[in-house]
Parts: sequence; structure tokens; C-alpha cells
Amino acid sequence: MTSIDALAARLRAAIGSSRVLTDRQELRTYECDGLAHYKVIPALVALPATAAQVAAVVRECAAAGVPFVARGSGTGLSGGALPHAEGVLIVTSQLREILDVRPDDERAVVQPGVINLQVTKAATPHGYYYAPDPSSQQICSIGGNVAENSGGAHCLKYGFTTNHVTGVEVVTPDGESVRLGGLAPDVPGYDLLGTFVGSEGTLGVATEVTVKLTRLPEAVRTLLAGFASTDQAGAATSAIIAAGVVPAAIEMMDALAIEAAEAAVRCGYPAGAGAVLIVELDGPAAEVDAQFDEVSALCVEHGAFETRIAADDTERALIWRGRKSAFAAVGRISPDYIVQDGVIPRTALPEVLRRIGEVAAEHGVRVANVFHAGDGNLHPLVLFDDAVPGQAERAETVSGAILELCIEHGGSITGEHGVGVDKATFMPRMFSDADLDTMQLLRCAFDPDGIANPGKVFPTPRLCGERPGRRQGTHPRHTPDVAEIF
Amino acid sequence: MTSIDALAARLRAAIGSSRVLTDRQELRTYECDGLAHYKVIPALVALPATAAQVAAVVRECAAAGVPFVARGSGTGLSGGALPHAEGVLIVTSQLREILDVRPDDERAVVQPGVINLQVTKAATPHGYYYAPDPSSQQICSIGGNVAENSGGAHCLKYGFTTNHVTGVEVVTPDGESVRLGGLAPDVPGYDLLGTFVGSEGTLGVATEVTVKLTRLPEAVRTLLAGFASTDQAGAATSAIIAAGVVPAAIEMMDALAIEAAEAAVRCGYPAGAGAVLIVELDGPAAEVDAQFDEVSALCVEHGAFETRIAADDTERALIWRGRKSAFAAVGRISPDYIVQDGVIPRTALPEVLRRIGEVAAEHGVRVANVFHAGDGNLHPLVLFDDAVPGQAERAETVSGAILELCIEHGGSITGEHGVGVDKATFMPRMFSDADLDTMQLLRCAFDPDGIANPGKVFPTPRLCGERPGRRQGTHPRHTPDVAEIF
Repeated sequence: MTSIDALAARLRAAIGSSRVLTDRQELRTYECDGLAHYKVIPALVALPATAAQVAAVVRECAAAGVPFVARGSGTGLSGGALPHAEGVLIVTSQLREILDVRPDDERAVVQPGVINLQVTKAATPHGYYYAPDPSSQQICSIGGNVAENSGGAHCLKYGFTTNHVTGVEVVTPDGESVRLGGLAPDVPGYDLLGTFVGSEGTLGVATEVTVKLTRLPEAVRTLLAGFASTDQAGAATSAIIAAGVVPAAIEMMDALAIEAAEAAVRCGYPAGAGAVLIVELDGPAAEVDAQFDEVSALCVEHGAFETRIAADDTERALIWRGRKSAFAAVGRISPDYIVQDGVIPRTALPEVLRRIGEVAAEHGVRVANVFHAGDGNLHPLVLFDDAVPGQAERAETVSGAILELCIEHGGSITGEHGVGVDKATFMPRMFSDADLDTMQLLRCAFDPDGIANPGKVFPTPRLCGERPGRRQGTHPRHTPDVAEIF
Repeated sequence: MTSIDALAARLRAAIGSSRVLTDRQELRTYECDGLAHYKVIPALVALPATAAQVAAVVRECAAAGVPFVARGSGTGLSGGALPHAEGVLIVTSQLREILDVRPDDERAVVQPGVINLQVTKAATPHGYYYAPDPSSQQICSIGGNVAENSGGAHCLKYGFTTNHVTGVEVVTPDGESVRLGGLAPDVPGYDLLGTFVGSEGTLGVATEVTVKLTRLPEAVRTLLAGFASTDQAGAATSAIIAAGVVPAAIEMMDALAIEAAEAAVRCGYPAGAGAVLIVELDGPAAEVDAQFDEVSALCVEHGAFETRIAADDTERALIWRGRKSAFAAVGRISPDYIVQDGVIPRTALPEVLRRIGEVAAEHGVRVANVFHAGDGNLHPLVLFDDAVPGQAERAETVSGAILELCIEHGGSITGEHGVGVDKATFMPRMFSDADLDTMQLLRCAFDPDGIANPGKVFPTPRLCGERPGRRQGTHPRHTPDVAEIF
């Protein structure tokens, strides 16, 4: 019996036979997450139904020294839930109960497999909603949102997942259940909660999440503005923020993205636009009305040749349909594409968009830009046809060059999709050795054997041991003989 | 030469003789922070002038195995900056430069010794301010604010220090300089920044802090309402929040606190009030006007017998003067007092205030209540006369009982003053062994020798070593023979 067979037997005893998959065909279902060009078949899949079962699975993995990877709905875009070939994939989608909705405390307590939009649906009758809204909110799980610190169009005003999670119950890599945070806005001791959110499965598995509920705004108003160029739309974005207005969202799409959206959903955006802006304001009606006029005027002042105001929810939904379908819509105009995710200072928007255009032209590749303009979070879609030799490689080159541009302009290699397996090699471009070492200190403290989602986030696995270099204040360099865990 | 003498010599060589104090009279200046009933004279005081000098001091401490404690302005109220008798006190008040004010990015970069209010003064000409506003904002330092995750009256709407710090440069306990966070709203990797903020000097010393600047609001309106009882004022507070209004501040003072404030600053609060509420709204004028009428109506509806609206900045300042002077004012009506700091769910306010009154009566002690009612952050002032035998002990008993009440009602042992040396023994009441162990894992990762502010925050020092128990998934119990470091 191999060690994986032995582990399978112990897991079956612990959580029940039907909850442990070993059949290769069944395992193949889980070979990738939303970043489908990385594929790995896990050794085992565990489908625990309770927090205690998650802890039992992790304890067995720890005892056997077998790596594990947690997965929610598998919609992540950085390969954070890519399985480990010799490891256990712990799927949390069976933990899908909304345990408590407490409008008076403005909190809900949910299991990690609960779908993002379900939280809002449970809160709406009480006058509340859950603010972070990834495009995948109809299918992505809260546990995955916590792992990746997911964002969304409305994070400009409302912040990321980390700003909306006040407590988690976590199974640490040794199988122990601990609570970080809680109902109160702030608790004494180390704020490990903030570290856990966005740790991409490397510090443990969330088994319960307490989230903030946000009051449904009294008024929401949405504006669509057509511009001749992304330069103009970028300038309008800066002007709106500079005026002190914080819209709930400012989204931009360039000509190619508009073309794709039109082809897919006929959203009827202004004809001939080189760029559109979607600006949404929400809040007290008095505030929204006052600021909306200002926003419209600023768009016109910066070159908008058409502005369109949603008269009702139907029109509002139509404006958003083009934006929300944009990623999928690109499939209409290109057989394959890479969704990139990077951040730049808002003020660098025009410059970086120009440079992206140049780099794309240089490599004979088309790039559609769809992004959260308000916070400088780009989502360039790099189009290619895998059937044409060399195109995939050229797309990869352009995609990497875009990240370099982000770093060069003082931005970040990810805004909301995470590092995962996809961008680990870019981490040393953003962080010094000392910075990465400091992060690894934490990882080693939680996971000395490196069994929690190894190979993700960090470019080089670090042996967790004596830290001889560090104690003398020098940096241990990662020597080439360090065993590659992943 | 003792080891401290040797260390003093090395520190003089590293940062200059005038920056190292060893004279006992000079050392005595630093024997306590704002929690003056704990006093310890440090072995040495270092007054570094640059980040490099801070790193040099910490490196020397690490090499010598000597503990260090960082101190800003020394205004903390939990003894977090209480010196260590065999250690070095690193005073950061010489690092007081505002390095950069970037209104376009809504950020300022400051040294840790910069006074809180100075950041606002530097930002105001650009239309911005620094939102967290401890009562001590005219003297407390940003470095201290970061260590304690300080709050203030306006944190109800704007959040605590942790919500306004986007980056720090830190000297870790081995003397290494690392950067956590930066200008961007969120960066990949572990969010160690959030853990560092509020870590009370146990993970290192901040040498540079990047803070968010907040747009000066278009309008600010302030209301003073007099009620017969704290019950009524508490009900009004809940009603305001339940209506979906988020005031910048809701402060409450009870009859004894009002009496003290009147004696000190003649603020002219409504005569005969059992409680007053100060409610401040800020934001766009249209929003503030609409919501202000609603707030006034809710106060009246819940029993306010008098409401007074500040007509201008002078009247606004007068309303706040009573509140801001309250702690000091209590000195007018009592020779000694303890400032307690605890949190309860807003909905438990009436019940907990009643219980505080009962406990106080039982022990023959008077308690004045001044607090951030909006977020349930109590600041009971327990009055006593140290000259009367037994009174100090009774006050301590009542003060401790108040924390028990907070825990009992699902709250927290500190809202904004920190744990420090004062509340370490209460930590096991809030956290399980597993929770505290998990925090200690982090501490040990950063500070394996326990030299960074030992004796603070955690009730029992933990030996940082093999963690044999934990790896098997059990909790190592702290055996009585573990050497007390502090």
C-alpha cells in the first residue's frame, strides 16, 4: 500500500468513504481553477462537510507529511487552488451554510463554501448587502474570496475582502482550530486576521467567516460616458477623484473591449467610442444627486461626447451587462486570451495604457483593456490563438511585460487575483530579500513542514529551520540545492 | 565593566555619546508612560536620530541579548512603553520629520516621532487631514499610534490607525530593516502590515510610516443633546446607527463626567442632565444637512430635553472642549483616578452602564463615564484617593470588574489603549490557549530571543524553540519553571 493509499484509508475512516475521491476520472474534474492553462491532477480529493472534518483531514495530512491545497468554487485566476500532484485537495464547497445574519451588529457568519452573492441575498431583506463583488460573485465562494483577498468593481469605495472580514475560524497546518478576530471591530493581540486574509491558502483553511454587512444605499445612480480615447477617459477619472468624489465604481473599457462586449451582449455603448467610463455613485440621495451633476460635468469637460444616465434598474443593468460580461465576451473575438491583473497609480493610467499598446503592437498581439480605473487596477486581456504556432508565447511575453510596466510605475503585480502559482516569480521584483524573508518567517511559524499550499506565492521555498543567517542580521541566500517542494 | 556598560560603550560608538543616557537622574525621566502607576527605570536610554541609528541600536541589543522597549511621546495608557529594568529604552522622538506630503496620492510619509496633529497641519493646506484623533493628539506620536493602533472620537466613521496606515519601514528584533506595505492600497504576499500595527512594540520598531490622508469634509455639524439618563442617551445612539446614519462621532458623558468638565472648563452643558450626547456629522453639505435633521429628531424622540446646535467653529470648539478635557477634568473632583478602556456591543450599553453603577456602589467608589458611544468603547474613570487607605485597592477591584463586564457581554478588554503591561493578565479571558499560542508563534518567528518589549501583551512568556507539543496538534502548557523574562 502506498503512503497515499494509506492516507486515503485514514481519511475514509475520519470523514466517510463517500467524501474521499481517488478515482482518476473524478480527480480530473479538479485539475485546475479559473487559470486553466496550469493543470495538475491531485493525488486525492477530500470533500469534508463540517469544520471538524476539515480539521481531521488537515491533521491526517500533517501526520503523513502530505501537502494539501484548499479549494472553494475553483474560480480563482492565479492558480491559487491548483492541486499538488502528491497532495490532497480539500474542497470546501460542502460547507455552504449561512450560520447567522445579524443586521443589528451588521455582521453575517458563514461557512467558507457559501457563494458570495448568497450572502447579499440573505442580507437584503434586512436592508443590507455584502459589499465585495468580484465579477464571479454568482459562483465564487467566500472562502476563496478570503484566501485571495478578492476585490470587485465596487472596491474603489468599499475596499477589498480584507476590509469586510472581521473574524475567521481557521484550521492551521497542524490541524488545530483557532479563531482570529470576531464580531468586534478590533481586538487586542496581533491582528493575524489581516495576515490570514489574502494568504492564499498558505497559512491554513478557513472553516467559518464573519463578514461585515453594508447598509443598502438609499440611492444608486449610474452614468455611462463615451470618450474618443482612453487618455481622455483616464483624465476624467483623475478629475473625478481630485474633486473629492468617491464613486462606488469607476470602470473603463477600451475600444477592443467594447467591440467584444457589443458582439456578445449588445449593450449598446456609444458608437465609435475609443473608451467608455461607467461611473456609479451611491449613498444618501441628497449626496448622490449633488455629486452626480459634478461627475457628469467633469466627464463632459474632459471630452465625453456622449453621457447616458440610467433612468431605472433595467437601464442600470444594461450598462453593467457590457462590463460584467467583458472577460467572457472576449472569447467572441479571440479563441484564447490571458486575463492579466496589475495595479498602477491612477495618475499613470494614460502613460501605461500607451505603453501597453506599444508593447502589444511590437509583438503583433491585440490587448483589450477592461479595468477598475478608479483604483488603477488594470485587467488587460491579451488575445491569442493557441492554434497558431508562436502566438501563445508572444501573448505570455506581452502579459509579462505588462506586469513589468506596472512595477516600473510604482504599482503592483496583482490587484485582486492574487499571486498563486502564476506570479510567484514576480515577487522578487516587488520585494527585497529581507521583505520576502520576513514573510517566510511567518509562513514557517505556521507551517514548518511546508505542507499548506506549497509552491504558491513565494518564488523559492524556504527551509524552515535554524535561520542561521538571519539571526546574525544577514540574508540567507537561497542556495540551489534547496529541495524544490513543489 | 558590566554588560550594560559594554553595551553603552558600543551604542555611543554607533550613534554618538550625546545620544546615549546612563545617568540615573536622566533615566528617571523615562520611568513611566501615561499609565503612571507602573514605574521602571531603564538601564539605558538611546535617542537615535535616524532610521539607521535605530537599526544600529537594535542590532547591538540583539548581539548582546539585551531587551529593548521603543517609546514615542510616552502618552500611552496601558504601559506599553514602560521600560525594562535591564533593557534599553529606544526613544524615537528625535525622528520627527514629515518626509513627504502627497495630496494626489492621498498619502503622507512621516518619521515615527512626528506628532499626530502635525500630520494634519501639514496636510490641511492641501485640503486633507489625518483622521485618527486620540485625545492626546497634540502630543502623541505617530509611532506610538502605530504600536497601539490608537483610536479617537472620530474612529466611529473613519476607523482606527490600522485603517490609515498603508506602509511602514520596520527594524525587526534582529536589527534588519524591512518594508511592509507601501503607497498602494493593497500588495501581494502576507499583510504583515496589519499585524505590525497594534503589535505594541513586540515585533520591532517603526522607523517610517506612510499614512492615508483624508479629504477635509465640505461640511461639519455638531449637536449637543441633554438627556435625563444614560439609558435614554444610549437608546438615542442605537436609534441613530439603526437609521443608517454613520456620524463622524457619537460621544457620551454621564452626570459625574459632566460635573467634572463643568468644574474645569465651564463648557455650559445642559443643566441637570444625567447624560449628554455629542453627535458630529461630516461630509458633503447636502448629506450632512439631510442627516442632521434626522439625528436631531431621533434625539428628541428618545427623550432629549435640550438640543443645541453649534452655529460656528467657536461653538463647536466649546462643545468639544468639555469632552476633550474630561479625563484631566476629573482631577478637579478626585485626587486620583484610573482611566479604564473596554468595548461592549452598542446594544449592551444601558445594561453594562447599570452594572458598572452597581459594582461601583457596592465598593463605595465613584465612576465617571466618558466614552465613544457610537462604537461601544467605554472609558470609565474610576475615582479614588490614594491617601485614604484601601481606596486604591477598591478602585482596582472595580476597574477589573468593569473589564469582566465587557468580556461577559461579548466585548473586549481594550478599545484603543492597548494591552501593554496593564491588561496582559486579562488576555486568557478573551483568547483560548490555541489562539494565544498562534499569536506566540508569530512573535517567536520575529523575536526568538524575546528581546522586543518583553512582558507586554502576553500573560506568559513562551520559550521559542522546538514547539514539540504543537507539532502533534496539542497545546504545550506553560509550566511554572518557564523563566519569567520580565
